Amino acid sequence: MTDMTVVGQSAPRLEGHEKITGRTAYVDDMQRPGMLHAAVLRSPYAHARLVSVDVTAARALPGVHCVLTGEDFPHHYGAFVRDEVALARGKVRYVGEPVAVVAADSLALARQALGLIATDYEELPAVMTPAEALAQDAPLVHDDFAAYGRRVAVPLPANVCAATTIAEGDVEAALAGCDVVIEGTYETQAQVHCYLEPCGALAEADAAGKLTVWSSCQSVFRVQATVAEVLGMPMSRVRAIATRVGGAFGGKSDVTVQPLAALLALRTRRPVKLVLSRDDDFMMMRTRHPATIWMKTGAMADGRLVARAARVTLDGGAYAEDSSAVLGFALLIARGPYRIDHVRMEGQVAYTNRLRAAGFRGYGNPQVTFAGECQVDEVAARLGRDPIDLRLQNAVRAGDRWVGGQAIEACGFAECLEKLRDALPPRVPGRGIGVACVTHISGILSTSAIVRVLEDGTVTLNTGAVDLGEGADTVLAQICAETLKIPLDRINYTVPDTDGSPYNWSTGGSRVTYMVGRAVAGAAGQARDRLFEHAAEMLECASGDLELRAGGRVGIVGVPGAEVPFRDISGRAHWVAGGPIIGTTSVMFEGGGFDPKRSAVTGNGIGKLGTFVFGAQAAEVEVDDVTGQIAVRRIWAAHDVGRAINPTAVEGQIAGGIVQGLGYALYEDLRFDGPNPANPTLMDYKVPGALDVPEITPIIVEHPEPSGPFGAKGIGEPPLVPVAPAIANAVADARGVRLKALPMTPERVLAALDGRR
Amino acid sequence: MTDMTVVGQSAPRLEGHEKITGRTAYVDDMQRPGMLHAAVLRSPYAHARLVSVDVTAARALPGVHCVLTGEDFPHHYGAFVRDEVALARGKVRYVGEPVAVVAADSLALARQALGLIATDYEELPAVMTPAEALAQDAPLVHDDFAAYGRRVAVPLPANVCAATTIAEGDVEAALAGCDVVIEGTYETQAQVHCYLEPCGALAEADAAGKLTVWSSCQSVFRVQATVAEVLGMPMSRVRAIATRVGGAFGGKSDVTVQPLAALLALRTRRPVKLVLSRDDDFMMMRTRHPATIWMKTGAMADGRLVARAARVTLDGGAYAEDSSAVLGFALLIARGPYRIDHVRMEGQVAYTNRLRAAGFRGYGNPQVTFAGECQVDEVAARLGRDPIDLRLQNAVRAGDRWVGGQAIEACGFAECLEKLRDALPPRVPGRGIGVACVTHISGILSTSAIVRVLEDGTVTLNTGAVDLGEGADTVLAQICAETLKIPLDRINYTVPDTDGSPYNWSTGGSRVTYMVGRAVAGAAGQARDRLFEHAAEMLECASGDLELRAGGRVGIVGVPGAEVPFRDISGRAHWVAGGPIIGTTSVMFEGGGFDPKRSAVTGNGIGKLGTFVFGAQAAEVEVDDVTGQIAVRRIWAAHDVGRAINPTAVEGQIAGGIVQGLGYALYEDLRFDGPNPANPTLMDYKVPGALDVPEITPIIVEHPEPSGPFGAKGIGEPPLVPVAPAIANAVADARGVRLKALPMTPERVLAALDGRR
Repeated sequence: MTDMTVVGQSAPRLEGHEKITGRTAYVDDMQRPGMLHAAVLRSPYAHARLVSVDVTAARALPGVHCVLTGEDFPHHYGAFVRDEVALARGKVRYVGEPVAVVAADSLALARQALGLIATDYEELPAVMTPAEALAQDAPLVHDDFAAYGRRVAVPLPANVCAATTIAEGDVEAALAGCDVVIEGTYETQAQVHCYLEPCGALAEADAAGKLTVWSSCQSVFRVQATVAEVLGMPMSRVRAIATRVGGAFGGKSDVTVQPLAALLALRTRRPVKLVLSRDDDFMMMRTRHPATIWMKTGAMADGRLVARAARVTLDGGAYAEDSSAVLGFALLIARGPYRIDHVRMEGQVAYTNRLRAAGFRGYGNPQVTFAGECQVDEVAARLGRDPIDLRLQNAVRAGDRWVGGQAIEACGFAECLEKLRDALPPRVPGRGIGVACVTHISGILSTSAIVRVLEDGTVTLNTGAVDLGEGADTVLAQICAETLKIPLDRINYTVPDTDGSPYNWSTGGSRVTYMVGRAVAGAAGQARDRLFEHAAEMLECASGDLELRAGGRVGIVGVPGAEVPFRDISGRAHWVAGGPIIGTTSVMFEGGGFDPKRSAVTGNGIGKLGTFVFGAQAAEVEVDDVTGQIAVRRIWAAHDVGRAINPTAVEGQIAGGIVQGLGYALYEDLRFDGPNPANPTLMDYKVPGALDVPEITPIIVEHPEPSGPFGAKGIGEPPLVPVAPAIANAVADARGVRLKALPMTPERVLAALDGRR
Repeated sequence: MTDMTVVGQSAPRLEGHEKITGRTAYVDDMQRPGMLHAAVLRSPYAHARLVSVDVTAARALPGVHCVLTGEDFPHHYGAFVRDEVALARGKVRYVGEPVAVVAADSLALARQALGLIATDYEELPAVMTPAEALAQDAPLVHDDFAAYGRRVAVPLPANVCAATTIAEGDVEAALAGCDVVIEGTYETQAQVHCYLEPCGALAEADAAGKLTVWSSCQSVFRVQATVAEVLGMPMSRVRAIATRVGGAFGGKSDVTVQPLAALLALRTRRPVKLVLSRDDDFMMMRTRHPATIWMKTGAMADGRLVARAARVTLDGGAYAEDSSAVLGFALLIARGPYRIDHVRMEGQVAYTNRLRAAGFRGYGNPQVTFAGECQVDEVAARLGRDPIDLRLQNAVRAGDRWVGGQAIEACGFAECLEKLRDALPPRVPGRGIGVACVTHISGILSTSAIVRVLEDGTVTLNTGAVDLGEGADTVLAQICAETLKIPLDRINYTVPDTDGSPYNWSTGGSRVTYMVGRAVAGAAGQARDRLFEHAAEMLECASGDLELRAGGRVGIVGVPGAEVPFRDISGRAHWVAGGPIIGTTSVMFEGGGFDPKRSAVTGNGIGKLGTFVFGAQAAEVEVDDVTGQIAVRRIWAAHDVGRAINPTAVEGQIAGGIVQGLGYALYEDLRFDGPNPANPTLMDYKVPGALDVPEITPIIVEHPEPSGPFGAKGIGEPPLVPVAPAIANAVADARGVRLKALPMTPERVLAALDGRR
C-alpha cells in the first residue's frame, strides 16, 4: 500500500469545476422541448375522509393538460408495508399530504389550477403523537390494511407500524447485580432533512410508453423500482437518471415525486417537471423519527459496563416507509461501541397523523446514542472516572462480536479515543468539555460495478451510485484509478442511469466507499487480470510475472524496459483477439447474518448488514446562564475510516456531519401547532449558519478493514451521531445539569438550571 | 429449436410506434438550452493551395460565437492512412471540402457569416479520374505525407492510396487450359449513399470539458474514438450517443461532422448543432468507389469454372478513409460463390480530386460481382447451359474452403439456386430473365453485450449497436428474449451510448444479427446460468436439473409445479444473496485468419473476417428498343440467412437492398462536370421511386450457421449486390447485348443495341 499514488490523495472533486462556476444543472435547471410544469394540491387536514375531489374546473382551465387524483394511482406500495399511496385516496392522513397534481404550460398556471380543484373533506379525529396513537380506542391512521394487504408476518396492535426486540444475556439479573445503574427517559425531535435542493423530478415518455425519469434522488434503481410499482409497469419500461443532487441525507432515499411526474408524462405525452417549493417540501416530505427512549445502563464499581435495557418509541408519521428498519437499526446499535454482555432493547413505531418520518443520516442511531452516551457519561461521573478512560476500558476491539454474533474484524475505536484524548487542550475556565462516541454500520445490501477499458487504454466506470454532494464519484474513481495504476483523469465516471449503470442499492448506510468501492475494486481487478492475459501473450511471459506500472502500463517484474501500455493492450483486445475488456462485479454483504441462537430478532429491517465503524468526539461549550444559550466553541472528532481514500473528502464528511449534528443538538425541530406544522419555513426552522459553526478538528484514524477497498469503510453518517450527547455531556461538565431532550434550546437549558437551583 | 416462441416470429419493430406516429427524434429535431447552430464553408476548388482564410469579419458578426479553420484541428487522423483533416489545411483536395465552420445563434446567421469569410486560393491542376491520377508526373493529391506519417508498411507509387493482390493456384496456366475464356472490362459509377437523413451532430461540453456528442452514426464507438483522435483528447473525455438514424448504408460509418460540432462546443461552452443540408451532404460526404474492372473467367467444356483473373482500379477520392479495406474485400470476394481453384485478383485505389469514396452497402462487392456474374452468364451462354444449372454445378458447399483457407461451415447457396429455379414462372414473351448470385461476409471485428436482470425479473440489454432503420434493435431483443424464454416486452433495449453501452465496432459488415447477436446470446446465457444457480438453491436441486419455462420461470425438469419466477430469483439476488445478476460477453471473429501458405495477401484491410452468406436472384426485364429504357418487372431473391430471427425484417432487408441495387443498376451516378459534381441534388440524382420498384419475391433459405445466434447470420448487404448483374443478364437474355457499364442508362442500352445492329 506504500506505493499508492491516487488513493490517500485529496484529489479535487470530479464535479468541482462545474459547481464552482455555477454550471451544475439540478432538476429545476433542466428544460425539455414542450415541457409542462406540475404543482401539487396538499391536504389541509391531518385526518379526514376524502369525500370528493372535483377537478372539472381545473381541467377546463386553458393551458392545463392533465389533473390527477388518487383514483389515478390504484396501486398501494411500500418497501416494508404496502401502505403508501402516491396521492391520497379514501382519506388523508396528514396536513400536507398530496391530494392532486396538475400539469400545465407554466408553473403559475398549474398553481392557479390547484385553486380550482373542489375538495370535500369530512374531518376525523387525529392522533398527533405516539401517546395519542397508542391510547386505547384511538382513531386508526390505517383502518383499511385488509384492502391492500400488509407485508409484515406478525400481527401488530392498532396504530403500531412496527415492533422489534433485540436481546442477549439476562439483562434483568445483570442490572440487579450492578453497582451503578443510570436510568432516564430521553426525548428527541423531528429534524427535517433540509437539503438545499427540494425534491424534484422531470419525466418523459417515448412513443412506446417507456418512461425516462430524471430526478434528485439517492438511487436511480429505487426510482426505477418505485415508479414501476406505483404505475404497475415492468421495470424494463422505466429508465431513471440521476441529476446532480443538492443534498439528500436520507430524505431522497424513498421515492415520492417521481411517480407523479411519470404518470403526468405518460398521460400528456409531454415532458413534465415537478419540483417542490420549499414550502411543499417541508409539508410533504419527511423528518427524522421523533423518539422517546427509556434507558437503563448498569456498571460495576470497577467501571465495567455490564447491562443496558431500553424501550424506544418512534413516531413514524402517517406512512410506514422504512420506519421498521430505522427501529431495528436503532435497537441493534443502542448498545453503543462497548462490551456490554446483557442487553434488551425493545421498540415500536407508532403511526400518527403527521408527515412521514423516515431514514435520516444516522438512521435511528442519533436518538439512541443521545441516550446511551449521556448514560455512559453519568456512569463515569458517578464512579469519578475520566469519561474517555471509562470508555476505553469498555471499548469493543477487533475480534469482538456484535449483538447477534457478527465479528468485528478491524476496529480503531480505542485509537479514536486515545487520539481524541491527545488532541484535547487544557481546560479553559468557564467552559465544559463533553465526550461522546459512536458506532455505526457501513455497508448493507447489494451493488455492482462495470469497468470497461476503451480502445485508447482509458477507462469507463459505471457504478450507478449517486453522489449526493459528498464526493462519492471522486472516491470511486480514485479506487478504480488506483487498482489500475492510472491517473484519475483517465477514468470516465458516468452518470447513474438505470439504462447503462449496473445496480446499486442506494447512497445510504454509509456504504458507497465501502460497498460500491468493493465492487469497483473487484471490477477493475477483473479488467487488470484481462490486461495481464493479453500482456502475457504480447510480452511472451507468464501472467504471474507481470506487474502494473504507473501511467497505465503492464511490465515484466524486474525487467524495466519490457512493458506494454494499456493503449496497445486494449487495441489488441478490440482489433485482434479476445474482444473488448470488461470487468464486472456484483457484491452483497453476506457476513452479517444474525445467529438466532445468540439473539432474538423479530420484525423487519434487520438482516445482513455491513462492517462496523467507530468514532469519538469531544465538544467544548460555554453556557450563558442568563439567556440559556449553549455556545459550542470547539469540536474534536476522531473517526476510524479504515483508510481515507480521499482525506479532504473524509474531513468534509466529518465537518458536514458535525454541523448537521449541531442543528440536531441545539436548533432544529419541526414543531406542531395542533395538526399543523408550526414552523415549515427556513425563517422559522433554524439550521446552523456559518456563524454557529465551531472550530472543528477532524482526526482520521485508519485501521484497514480487510473486506474494504484498500481497507476503506464509510464515514457518511457517523460524525452526526455523537454531537448532541457530546454537547449535553459538556453542558453537564460545565453546569452539572443533564439535558434529556433535544434540541437543547435556551428554554430547556434555563429550565434545567432553574431545576438545579 | 422447435419450441422457440420469439425467434422466428415477425415481431413488430420496437421503435415502430414512434416512427409511425412521427415522434421519432433525429438529430435535427433535438433542442438543447442555449444551443448554437453551425454551418460549413466548402471549397470551390478541386485542388488548390489554401493561401489564407480570414475569418475576422465573420467573427465580428453579432450572434457569431465561434469560427474554426484548419489551424484549429492540428491532428491528422484516419483508420488506415493518417491523411484526413477535419477542415482543410494547407490545401483543398476536392470541391466541397470543408474549409471553415461557424457557430452562431441561428442557422441563418451562421450561413451569413460564411459569406464573410475571405479565402485566398491558388488553384492547382487537379486529377479527376484514376487514369489522370496514375499518369506519369500527375499532380499529387497528397504531397505532404512526410509531414504526418502514413500507417501503411509498403511504400506505394504516387497517388496510389492502396494496392493489394490476392492469389491462389496458377491462374495463367489454368486459363491457358480452359475451353472457354470470357474477358471483359467493366465500369461502375459513384453511387451516393442518399440516406434520407443528412449527416448531423449535436455536441455539448460540461464544465470539466467532457464532451457529449449525439449524432446520426453507425457506431458511437467510432464517434468516440474519432472525436478523441481529432481533438487530441483521451476517449474517457468523450461520450457519444446515437440518435435515431435515418439511413446510413456505410456513409455514416466514418466520422466527419462530429469533431466539428465537438470543437465548437468546447470553444463556446454551448451546445452546438451541425446538421448538413442535402446540398452539403452531397458535396462533402461520400460515394461508393467508382471501379474499372478487367476480368477474365475460364471454364472447361463440361461447365467447370477453373480460373479467374481480375485487375481492379478504384477511385478513392481525396482521402483514404477505408478504401484499402474496400479494395481488399472486393478482391477477396471477386471469386464469387464458386469453386474456382485458380485466382489472381490485383487491385489498387487511386487518390483523385473528388469527394471521398468509402464503404457502401456491399463494400466493393457490387463492383466485382457485376463483372463476375456477367462473365459466369457468358460462360453459360457460350456452353449453351442453363445459367442456374451451371451455377449449381460450380456452387461452393458446406465444408469447402474460401480463398485464404477459411472453412465454410454452413452453406445454403445450392438451396438458394434451387429455390430460385422453383420460384421462376414460365417465360413471358418479350421479357428476358437474368440470374446473378452473391456471396458476402457477415461478421468482422469485435463486439460485446451486457444483460442485466432487474429486480422484477425483467431485463435490460446493452449492446451499443446502432439500428440504422433496419430493425437491429428488435432482432437483438428477440435473441435476448428467446435465450431467456421471456416475452419481448420484458426486454429494455437501450440506446447506444458510450457511457453505458459496451463496445460494438459498428453496424456494418452485415454483422449485427450475427456478431452482436452472438454477444447477446452469450451474455443472456450467462445471466441464465446465474438464474439457474439461484434457482437450484431455492428449489433445492442441481442446476443441471433445471429448465427455462416460458414467461420467465425456472423449473425442475419433469416436475411441473416446481418452479420459481425470475422476479423471485432476481429479488433474492438483489436482496438476499449473491448480488445483482449481470451477464457479459465480448466476442471477436477469430476463425477467419488467412493462411499465408495458401494465399498471398498483401496490403491492408484483409484480416479476420466473419462467416459467409449466400444468395441468388433473378430479374425479369423488358427493354424498350425505342427509348432504351429497361423496365424491371419482377425480382426473385433467395438468400441464406442461417436462420431468420425476424422474417419480416429479413424480407425488409431483401427488398431494401434490391431497391438500392436497382438504383445502382439503372439510375444512380454522381457525375462530374470538370471538377464539379454535376448533379448533387435529389432533383438531378435519381434514386428509385415507388413507381420504379418491381414486384419483389423474397425467399428465405435457412441453413443454420453453427457459430450464429440460433443459427442466424447477416442479410444487410447481400441483397443489393446481384441486382445489377441480374438485370444485365436479363437484358442479354432479352436482346442479346451485354452491358458492361453502370448505370445501365437508356443511352447505354441504345448504344449497345446500335452496336448489335
